[in-house]
Amino acid sequence: MINKLICFFTLIFFSCTESVPLNSKKDLNYGIVIHGGAGTMNRKDMTPEKEKQYREALEESVTLGYKILKEGGTSQEAVEHSIRVMENSPLFNAGKGAVLTAEKTIELDAAFMNGKDLNAGAVASVKTIKNPITAAIKVMEESPHVLLSARGAEKFAKEKDLEIVDPSYFFTERRVNDLDKIKNIESSANRSTRQADKEFISMQRYGTVGAVALDKHGDLSAGTSTGGMANKKWNRIGDVPIIGAGTYANNSTCAISATGWGEFFIRNVVGHDISALMEYKNYSIEEAARIVIHDKVAKLGGDGGVIGIDREGNVVMEMNTSGMYRAHINSEGELSIEIYKN
Amino acid sequence: MINKLICFFTLIFFSCTESVPLNSKKDLNYGIVIHGGAGTMNRKDMTPEKEKQYREALEESVTLGYKILKEGGTSQEAVEHSIRVMENSPLFNAGKGAVLTAEKTIELDAAFMNGKDLNAGAVASVKTIKNPITAAIKVMEESPHVLLSARGAEKFAKEKDLEIVDPSYFFTERRVNDLDKIKNIESSANRSTRQADKEFISMQRYGTVGAVALDKHGDLSAGTSTGGMANKKWNRIGDVPIIGAGTYANNSTCAISATGWGEFFIRNVVGHDISALMEYKNYSIEEAARIVIHDKVAKLGGDGGVIGIDREGNVVMEMNTSGMYRAHINSEGELSIEIYKN
Repeated sequence: MINKLICFFTLIFFSCTESVPLNSKKDLNYGIVIHGGAGTMNRKDMTPEKEKQYREALEESVTLGYKILKEGGTSQEAVEHSIRVMENSPLFNAGKGAVLTAEKTIELDAAFMNGKDLNAGAVASVKTIKNPITAAIKVMEESPHVLLSARGAEKFAKEKDLEIVDPSYFFTERRVNDLDKIKNIESSANRSTRQADKEFISMQRYGTVGAVALDKHGDLSAGTSTGGMANKKWNRIGDVPIIGAGTYANNSTCAISATGWGEFFIRNVVGHDISALMEYKNYSIEEAARIVIHDKVAKLGGDGGVIGIDREGNVVMEMNTSGMYRAHINSEGELSIEIYKN
Repeated sequence: MINKLICFFTLIFFSCTESVPLNSKKDLNYGIVIHGGAGTMNRKDMTPEKEKQYREALEESVTLGYKILKEGGTSQEAVEHSIRVMENSPLFNAGKGAVLTAEKTIELDAAFMNGKDLNAGAVASVKTIKNPITAAIKVMEESPHVLLSARGAEKFAKEKDLEIVDPSYFFTERRVNDLDKIKNIESSANRSTRQADKEFISMQRYGTVGAVALDKHGDLSAGTSTGGMANKKWNRIGDVPIIGAGTYANNSTCAISATGWGEFFIRNVVGHDISALMEYKNYSIEEAARIVIHDKVAKLGGDGGVIGIDREGNVVMEMNTSGMYRAHINSEGELSIEIYKN
């Protein structure tokens, strides 16, 4: 009898000590991180006006997501709506403003993953869906599949009453000019000699947008959306719609969204590898992201960056490029917006 | 001085003891494992004639790969040629004999990965490439990309002089009848009640082929090829061309090829998770595969199986279905062919 009583009070004691800090942690440490692409970024190329535009767009995106979290919304809603802001802005390589393929078309990829149930959805090579991130979520919620592509994915989006636009909606003068410039550089004799040209080509690989969030309920989500690589050929699909590579979320570890030279992020299974280092080796999200970006992606010759948030609200914004458009708001409402690495 | 001498001899001792068994191990323990799909397999549905056909096809495939390895060829060559045998056979859901989509078309996916340099290539939703596994390898070797899709991938394959066929080449009477049967079951009122119908539908998710090999040089490779899920809609892409999910190889751990309900293999990043459990937790390939298939894929409601080989030649053929067509030849030349789980 005494044993049973001791057992009972021990149980009560541990239930109390465990549940209070855990709940308060969840309530306290929610947060959201977004990115608008990583790449070679020189301060000399950036006018004050251009920088202001990027900062304003990043602030609008991250603030909307934060507001959703603060009001008790889910990380899924926060990630979706933050990404939609960037998809609707012509500044980023996602949705409106996406880069052009070699055939002067637009091919958009997006993915979303929920850490709570490891459910996921993605679309690849779509040309008429205004907000691919919303289509990715619909694939997760209303189809038995994870990845739909091309015209089939567009048909699905139409059946689900998502907003369909004419492909011309996505075109911006800037991206049309960029493609002409790439084609000129690639066909010119001295394409490999001029540093400025090399940097320009390099920049065209990037610009993907993404968001990761932890909500008050303790649930993690990750989403990513992109126009892919400028001048891409052969219906190339990058790392963004590949669950485990460009997009990954798992409530036992973290939520990750990547941006960079997609092929290297696929080969390194970047998102899942960061999660695995945390789960199996007890690394912090900072250590795990540093190892994967600097020791693995960079070692194979790739570059780019990731944003991540773990289940305690710790965040990481790691890159091996000279910059990444990024912003973060923590549960205190503190906003940070950064462009350059240092 | 004495310390230095001890250090020197210790170094010599360990260098010798390590290098001899390692080299001899590499020479000894090469091997190849193949699969022709996992699923609900009942002995009562299998005629002796049908079983003989499957066993002969599996033996032809695995023997060809083994011969390449024995003669000093690479694991890449062994995997490619073993898979081509199964793609060319009408028995499996890959290449000729692939299942049909809801629109009565063929959409093939394939992927290949090299463990030596983590290089990889894949194609998705192709309709005219006779051997998608060879196209996946070409993407790896002769493009800057990992994943090409649809008509773009076909254009690439044509540019690289791969064999292109009319889509009708892939059609078999059996698969046309299967699709009709699925559509009938799905449109009938009692579709969810009859166990036989449920099993039939369930079987249509499977049949993917794959191979993993370790060669005499100590290099691992993995490849997978499939027609995907019968009656699939919306240009669905499964786990096969997703590096890290259905196909993964890494010389520091293992080579994995999966077959099963693809969506669950994507969400669990199956191939990379098995590798991560080995790399980060020192699990054996058997332990790692068991955890991922039974504790992770099954827990989410998915089913299927994997084949794998590690860098020492240990193999695994793990499933949570009642069967998986599979075969293995080890470095002693010992052949095993199995269909049922027990």
